[in-house]
Amino acid sequence: MSAAPGFGPSFVDVLAAAGRLEGVARRTPLLEDSFLNDMAGRRVLVKAECLQITGSFKFRGAWNRISALDAAARKRGVVAFSSGNHAQGVAHAAQILGVPAVIVMPRDAPAAKIAATRRYGAEATLYDRKTENREEIARRISAERGGLTLVPPFDDPFVIAGQATVGLEIADQAREAGVAQAEVLVNCSGGGLASGVALALSERAPGLRVRTVEPEGFDDWARSYAAGSPQSNAAATGSIQDALMSPGPGVLPFEIGRRLFGGAGLVVSDDEALRAMAAAFARLKLVLEPGGAASLAAALFRREAIQGEAVIVVSSGGNVDPEIFARALAFA
Amino acid sequence: MSAAPGFGPSFVDVLAAAGRLEGVARRTPLLEDSFLNDMAGRRVLVKAECLQITGSFKFRGAWNRISALDAAARKRGVVAFSSGNHAQGVAHAAQILGVPAVIVMPRDAPAAKIAATRRYGAEATLYDRKTENREEIARRISAERGGLTLVPPFDDPFVIAGQATVGLEIADQAREAGVAQAEVLVNCSGGGLASGVALALSERAPGLRVRTVEPEGFDDWARSYAAGSPQSNAAATGSIQDALMSPGPGVLPFEIGRRLFGGAGLVVSDDEALRAMAAAFARLKLVLEPGGAASLAAALFRREAIQGEAVIVVSSGGNVDPEIFARALAFA
Repeated sequence: MSAAPGFGPSFVDVLAAAGRLEGVARRTPLLEDSFLNDMAGRRVLVKAECLQITGSFKFRGAWNRISALDAAARKRGVVAFSSGNHAQGVAHAAQILGVPAVIVMPRDAPAAKIAATRRYGAEATLYDRKTENREEIARRISAERGGLTLVPPFDDPFVIAGQATVGLEIADQAREAGVAQAEVLVNCSGGGLASGVALALSERAPGLRVRTVEPEGFDDWARSYAAGSPQSNAAATGSIQDALMSPGPGVLPFEIGRRLFGGAGLVVSDDEALRAMAAAFARLKLVLEPGGAASLAAALFRREAIQGEAVIVVSSGGNVDPEIFARALAFA
Repeated sequence: MSAAPGFGPSFVDVLAAAGRLEGVARRTPLLEDSFLNDMAGRRVLVKAECLQITGSFKFRGAWNRISALDAAARKRGVVAFSSGNHAQGVAHAAQILGVPAVIVMPRDAPAAKIAATRRYGAEATLYDRKTENREEIARRISAERGGLTLVPPFDDPFVIAGQATVGLEIADQAREAGVAQAEVLVNCSGGGLASGVALALSERAPGLRVRTVEPEGFDDWARSYAAGSPQSNAAATGSIQDALMSPGPGVLPFEIGRRLFGGAGLVVSDDEALRAMAAAFARLKLVLEPGGAASLAAALFRREAIQGEAVIVVSSGGNVDPEIFARALAFA
């Protein structure tokens, strides 16, 4: 890994990730719909990453990290902490590669995410988001089992490089769609996806600039980008956009984002995320989870805050419990 | 059009359709999920045609028919009758090509389908499925307006050739997935899609053989294939698989299917279709309509009736009202 200290992966690492993911991850489609264009007042190109294996982009980074481990490390196994999508990405990548995996998950994560993680053959250990520290739990488990490799959710050059392959695909697909200049709205928690996409686009499509999208009350990236230094969230729970509630920006993602993001972060409400899920249901025939729909919500409901004749939206995940999806259907 | 009388389009017509659709229709992905494979007891490859423009395969045939009209016919306009998906395909193809369109739709079609047809700029005329004849209504409207071109839902060489492009894509995508021998389950109403796919596969992937899938009570294709002559349905309404309730096989589709289909037709219940919708929601992040989910239902719930280590399923549409989708979520 050729990362400069504190600056995450290089573009060469992104190309290496693309090589490892070739024939393993899906090249997800970039979709456009005339009704959504009308609603948004400009072309909306939706990167349907909910169609990725395991239902979210997280498989890319997990595969890139685990497949690069040596034989001894693979045999010992991996450990990860995650609210659900990273859990599934790590569990399934480990399963395919024959690597044992332990996943530390919050007890209030969506039931579908916990169940799927276990069905991918991983051991899921639940913790209380308010009173326990997931990193400590992961470290303890690793020590107890003779040194498992931690697969971090975002603060890791391999993980960021894996997520960056979404950006490589967007660069090609936007060119095919005739879009050279656009804001690229990316749902943001720790920032692995947003920073990775920004890194790939800065080399391959510099007219496409990333902006983060977050839930109300979890706008650490918007405030950090504005302040020029990392800011954290007051709350640890409280949004149905469960994938977007990390305590604050990752160290590497923030360093990348500070240099490469192209504008102020956007913030959407839970109701707006549900409405965007309804629009994706009705018009794109895609199942989005609330945190996966934030960027589409921003495209539809923050028209005045967005520049340009086209906007690109990364719809990052679709792992949602039926009860929450039923709430979105009420808006369809 | 080089069709022999009574035998529909030739393979050359299919290639011509692919040329007309290039850069217009989407090449929809062929998806696979390990949990669905476990449920089905074999590999299940899902052709996600619900992601096609207008939410179903019907856009392909409509575009192929309308784009082949001469300037005078385009100016006069087109007329079509449809329970909903063909309506949207014709309306949107006509809209893009600047051709006026009138669509004759049953009053009990899903509200979402009627509304979308109108939003695509077409005039929607509603009729009563039990007491009125949609073909007569279409003929009358055509005569009143100086000769509109009828775009039939299935009994037309151009329409079948357009739908056949789904089969061209399946041939390539199955090869990439390492599948050379498989049954290809296709939801079947008039049979335009099933016969078109069979035509394309017979030339490009002869180890892939089409079998039809229909709702209980609307099994005209299964009975017709078994009898060797066209059989019709007793009922005109009564299934939530609203896209699959044509009175009987189309003439051209039946002639093609009789020669090229690879086995007995399959039949699924409405509950099984809803369960398949739930599986597509949970595992593929796809929105399927009941009639679009019949083939997946057959793969999941008719294991013993299917041969081979892999099965290919055409998930033909996703235009479903939220109330019906909520019923499917109860099975998720």
